[in-house]
Amino acid sequence: MNFDDIVALDKADVLASKRDEFDLPANTIYLDGNSLGALPKSVKSRVAQVVSEQWGSHLIRSWNDHQWIDLPTQVGEKIAPIIGAEKGQVICCDSISINLFKLLSSALILNTGRSKVLSTQDNFPTDLYMVQGLSDLLGTDLCQLKLVEEQYIEQHLTDDIAVLLLTQVNFRTGKLLNMQKLTELAHKKGILVIWDLAHSAGALPVELDKCNVDFAVGCGYKYLNGGPGSPAFLYVAKRHQSAVKQPLSGWMGHAKPFAFDAQYECAASINQYLCGTPSVIAMSALDAALDVWESVKISDVRAKSIALADVFIALVHSHASLADLRLSSTEDSIQRGSQLAFSHNHAFAICQALIEKGVIADFRAPNILRFGFTPLYTSFEDVWNAVNTLVDVVTTKLYAEPRFNLAGKVT
Amino acid sequence: MNFDDIVALDKADVLASKRDEFDLPANTIYLDGNSLGALPKSVKSRVAQVVSEQWGSHLIRSWNDHQWIDLPTQVGEKIAPIIGAEKGQVICCDSISINLFKLLSSALILNTGRSKVLSTQDNFPTDLYMVQGLSDLLGTDLCQLKLVEEQYIEQHLTDDIAVLLLTQVNFRTGKLLNMQKLTELAHKKGILVIWDLAHSAGALPVELDKCNVDFAVGCGYKYLNGGPGSPAFLYVAKRHQSAVKQPLSGWMGHAKPFAFDAQYECAASINQYLCGTPSVIAMSALDAALDVWESVKISDVRAKSIALADVFIALVHSHASLADLRLSSTEDSIQRGSQLAFSHNHAFAICQALIEKGVIADFRAPNILRFGFTPLYTSFEDVWNAVNTLVDVVTTKLYAEPRFNLAGKVT
Repeated sequence: MNFDDIVALDKADVLASKRDEFDLPANTIYLDGNSLGALPKSVKSRVAQVVSEQWGSHLIRSWNDHQWIDLPTQVGEKIAPIIGAEKGQVICCDSISINLFKLLSSALILNTGRSKVLSTQDNFPTDLYMVQGLSDLLGTDLCQLKLVEEQYIEQHLTDDIAVLLLTQVNFRTGKLLNMQKLTELAHKKGILVIWDLAHSAGALPVELDKCNVDFAVGCGYKYLNGGPGSPAFLYVAKRHQSAVKQPLSGWMGHAKPFAFDAQYECAASINQYLCGTPSVIAMSALDAALDVWESVKISDVRAKSIALADVFIALVHSHASLADLRLSSTEDSIQRGSQLAFSHNHAFAICQALIEKGVIADFRAPNILRFGFTPLYTSFEDVWNAVNTLVDVVTTKLYAEPRFNLAGKVT
Repeated sequence: MNFDDIVALDKADVLASKRDEFDLPANTIYLDGNSLGALPKSVKSRVAQVVSEQWGSHLIRSWNDHQWIDLPTQVGEKIAPIIGAEKGQVICCDSISINLFKLLSSALILNTGRSKVLSTQDNFPTDLYMVQGLSDLLGTDLCQLKLVEEQYIEQHLTDDIAVLLLTQVNFRTGKLLNMQKLTELAHKKGILVIWDLAHSAGALPVELDKCNVDFAVGCGYKYLNGGPGSPAFLYVAKRHQSAVKQPLSGWMGHAKPFAFDAQYECAASINQYLCGTPSVIAMSALDAALDVWESVKISDVRAKSIALADVFIALVHSHASLADLRLSSTEDSIQRGSQLAFSHNHAFAICQALIEKGVIADFRAPNILRFGFTPLYTSFEDVWNAVNTLVDVVTTKLYAEPRFNLAGKVT
């Protein structure tokens, strides 16, 4: 593969024009959109308008006049088609952690008589922490966490499990789990399934309705580009909505929030999963960011994502100097999300050296270098240049003297 | 009282210059800062900088380089002096509703053996809903809500109560409860106290440490001017911090969030009350808004707040045409927050007519007109003009034909 091939790939890229919709810094190759998506240009003007005009000039009246009150539903409905959900099942609110607490509680109440929540040892920690928090609160008779290695999930789907809690794409390795198959196997044993879409929503086709998924959560600030700490979303299948309850029963989830009744009565819709007043500025940013998706086919995103990663792998393999970089992700693109993990003894130092040279990758303890591919704004030339920089860093041992420490690295 | 008196009051106002730090719309008298604070000028530039430079140009690196990771602590410490708290006890996160769930759980665990949460019938509904949600989850053996009328709180402070949950200033009437006395009486019976400061933080002196309060929550978007749906805050007294636990144990509350351990271990500080990733844009807005307070003495805020409300009452009383407007708040300013409630059979229609004429007040069901006074940007001339507009609306019966309905009015 040579540079002409790369140019040809970019030329044939049906998503190439999307890059112009983002504000990308000069002299930077950003391969960390799986941690924090880049800034869509539309967000800048929208946020300025919300702050200056809607809040500043129109003040409290904007709750009605600028439909602030509808934002959680409106944003949820924009996310729905990206994750294969029909209307009325997705809402934007709070964080993934908080939303998991709501859904775990709902699922355990629906599946009364069972207490075990099955998850994987290598799931993103906050998912496990939320189960632990609920377990500590309710006692292990009502909620207990059971962890297995990713490859042994199927054999642990037994009829004493209440809830299967899985992240579709592993945050370290990028391993993609089979949503359809695992959901089906779980259901056969009477197990309800919660999928965490943090690393898959906006990265690849997700088919919640088609897979008959019960519940899901996901993230606004990775592939959906809603900004740092953007509000999250949750999905509850229509068939469960009349039977479920959730304990974080704040006033925004009330059937009539503005009646100010002393007695809680939950909304008869996905709105019951709302809790407190949402951040209008943060949610408006995500709302604007989602407009980028309007003309995008998620199948095109997936095709380009696979091509970008495959080119990255091929280029790494073509350089003898990168032999110490071992691919921890699978080579089988069908079983991969939109990121690649490589292990290396000096992963942390290499990552810092790459960042110094304008290639933003990510480090995950203990020894993983992580590269994320965000097809809306990553080009094949980015991949070409990133690998060349990697060669440069490794061959000149720019990483020999780490000048940074671990404190405060964020997913 | 005549207009010269009003001019003299504005001239003598030590907070008058603060008004210039806000972006107030022309031809508007804003008496609803107790629902949504006005826009501080500093917020506009800060939000633009966070979006364009920190997120747009610096991307994921800003978690460290722009100290995003420190925002919850930094904002908490800016709020602390406004509510009479020494360092290390206040943190900014989530919403009031979510934070109440954390604190209610903590208090019930600390006070094991008791299950009753005492609150007032007329507390802000979401506070009651959160107790109801926890009660439904845990069962009434572990958590049950007991409601009394505000005037009977003291006699219900019995030694079977676990937690006293009160809002310092009533959202409808503006009635100010005696924090010191009620906290002391509760403690004598072994009751832990949670104070909701939604309508008091930034409106009047709050003395959490001095009153020996156990827990508190509060709002970023009213008197603290952090913007619509701004993140909330919570307070946990230092003496409880090593003993408490909270169930919303997300990764931001972990002792070492970036170690990505599968096992949760809570931070040994107020940080254990963090849950998921916070909205950086929303929290930065609040952070900038709080800089307005740097040179402000809360005693000056209180003195002006009382004066504004007293002038408002005096002017209403001076107009015979406003005789049907009955003050629901107490005339005793010591027992009032920074708002006035008047009842009127046509309260809703009058409120809408006022808004049409540029006087932004608020309606609360069933028949309350609510006027909030925010001393940082409300002038005595505002009060004078507001009452004159009220006279105009009432005498010309501009409210006779309500053209609006109740749907979607927000506190």
